[in-house]
Amino acid sequence: MKIAVDAMGGDNAPKVIIEGIEQARDQHPDLEFMLFGDEQAVKSLIQNQERIQIIPTSQEIEMGEEPVRAIRKKKDSSLVQAAMAVKRADADAFFSAGNTGAILAAGLLLIGRIKGIDRPGLTSVLPIAIPNDEGTKRFIYLDSGANAESKEKNLVQFAQLGRFYAQKVLGIKNPRIALLNNGAEVDKGDTFHKEVHQLLAQAGDLNFVGNIESGDLLYGKADVVVSDGWTANAALKATEGTAKVLLKLIKDGILGGGLRAKLGYLFLKPVFKQIAKVMTPSNYGGAVLLGIQAPVVKAHGAADKKAVVSTIDQIYTMLQSKVVDETVAYFKPEEDK
Amino acid sequence: MKIAVDAMGGDNAPKVIIEGIEQARDQHPDLEFMLFGDEQAVKSLIQNQERIQIIPTSQEIEMGEEPVRAIRKKKDSSLVQAAMAVKRADADAFFSAGNTGAILAAGLLLIGRIKGIDRPGLTSVLPIAIPNDEGTKRFIYLDSGANAESKEKNLVQFAQLGRFYAQKVLGIKNPRIALLNNGAEVDKGDTFHKEVHQLLAQAGDLNFVGNIESGDLLYGKADVVVSDGWTANAALKATEGTAKVLLKLIKDGILGGGLRAKLGYLFLKPVFKQIAKVMTPSNYGGAVLLGIQAPVVKAHGAADKKAVVSTIDQIYTMLQSKVVDETVAYFKPEEDK
Repeated sequence: MKIAVDAMGGDNAPKVIIEGIEQARDQHPDLEFMLFGDEQAVKSLIQNQERIQIIPTSQEIEMGEEPVRAIRKKKDSSLVQAAMAVKRADADAFFSAGNTGAILAAGLLLIGRIKGIDRPGLTSVLPIAIPNDEGTKRFIYLDSGANAESKEKNLVQFAQLGRFYAQKVLGIKNPRIALLNNGAEVDKGDTFHKEVHQLLAQAGDLNFVGNIESGDLLYGKADVVVSDGWTANAALKATEGTAKVLLKLIKDGILGGGLRAKLGYLFLKPVFKQIAKVMTPSNYGGAVLLGIQAPVVKAHGAADKKAVVSTIDQIYTMLQSKVVDETVAYFKPEEDK
Repeated sequence: MKIAVDAMGGDNAPKVIIEGIEQARDQHPDLEFMLFGDEQAVKSLIQNQERIQIIPTSQEIEMGEEPVRAIRKKKDSSLVQAAMAVKRADADAFFSAGNTGAILAAGLLLIGRIKGIDRPGLTSVLPIAIPNDEGTKRFIYLDSGANAESKEKNLVQFAQLGRFYAQKVLGIKNPRIALLNNGAEVDKGDTFHKEVHQLLAQAGDLNFVGNIESGDLLYGKADVVVSDGWTANAALKATEGTAKVLLKLIKDGILGGGLRAKLGYLFLKPVFKQIAKVMTPSNYGGAVLLGIQAPVVKAHGAADKKAVVSTIDQIYTMLQSKVVDETVAYFKPEEDK
């Protein structure tokens, strides 16, 4: 199994990418890597080239660049070249911590959709902060930003894509699927969400548990939450933003609170550490673009070595479980079977 | 100035409503009240009837009832009778802590829209958690749940309604108006939000500062944030839900952390108290349905006496500042002038 790695994408690239890849290589004897990036930089950082092939590239796609334009113009960028290796089947999966839009565009336009999928969906893995009866610790959430305008059938496909991922990669037998809506009751929502609710309830192979409100996301009521990209984005950013603001308020309060507050912090440190652990998205792996012919996985731009390793673990599980093959078989049009 | 009060709406009604009204009455010698509710209950709770007229009603609208149906069927409910008093101009403003949907319906269908306003918008006042250069501590956010499907022109009207409210009631000279969108850049958003952005930028009398993302709401980048009801609801509930989850995680961690954590809590108590103060929405007053011919203000269902008093203060400022008259004059169609 071979993973094509964009060594240049991410705030701390290529250093933490290479460190993470080397650690993941040592942990998985059956993994090989193709490392795309600036030859000199990569070679100066790498400790041991075992099972790592370095492919020199001359360009980099920056974080702020317009995605489609960037992948069209920068054909010798580490990101595009890594995607092209997957397209040619030289590698089995794609990894980058770079420009999200460019990763989505490379997945969609270079590697390509699974036949029968109209639009791929970007998943995020989010924490279940409040323990629930099922004992699950995380859920997946899609489409978390790939498409601003979604159609009803896209969301039904997201539910199926999420179901396969939760079964195969997270090991949940019968994943509970929910629809993000503006109320929990059956009759809630605008015309679009009412229609999607009906379609999900009618799909015989989905364990559809109904609507979920954005305020209940972290309570673990579902294993897969589907949403149009627009609403998902608004709810996800508000969730992340609020967590950040509250943690900052606590930190500022401690820093400005004199010796008393600092002592209090020392005593409460284990509590804060545990909360930070639960609420740090990178502990739950990267974002996966589902519906593409190979695993396309994006680590957070600020990913550290640990986050790179855990994202490679995730790709490894995707490859081992053959989740993409199962998805391809499910969506195969009748005439192709 | 006379306020029509639904004494029976809210989790702690009529007790806290009456206590709050009595305190507000003592603070504002020029305020009078009409108290609508169960005569026996109200009379047994009231201490001093000075400037308080009790109007007996025989019905109550419960929290879970379907709003439009409820206001049509329960004509002798405290909520409907309070709204009818405003409609007849027996009172100048409406107050309730009851069923939000029924309050919106009573405002819209019984009291009525301001001429020229297509749809009223429900505001929430939210905290600015991170201090900003302007020194402001709160901002208003609309439409926070009145309409699931909004048109472009509705959002422009929300911006104008919010501007008048921020100027007159919050005392902000030139309120900064922002549009909730899926990115901060000018070209972000779906077709609808791009069009609204254009319209807001073109409105000569608005201090439009551009797009704001839901993750940045609590940073105080604007005084008025306008949004379609759908996105506003998703972002607001995610913000409230995340704050609740994080505070619960901290509380659970302290309770389960033994003596050490409890000591830590004691030392950090002032920090937590300050954060709770900042993050408690009821400290910022009630939700106002803007665009109605009189102030229609809803306190939180769980409002305590203090929240009732601060909401009456808010209505008092609305009446004194004549914000509704100014709004009426601005939206008056040319042929009526």
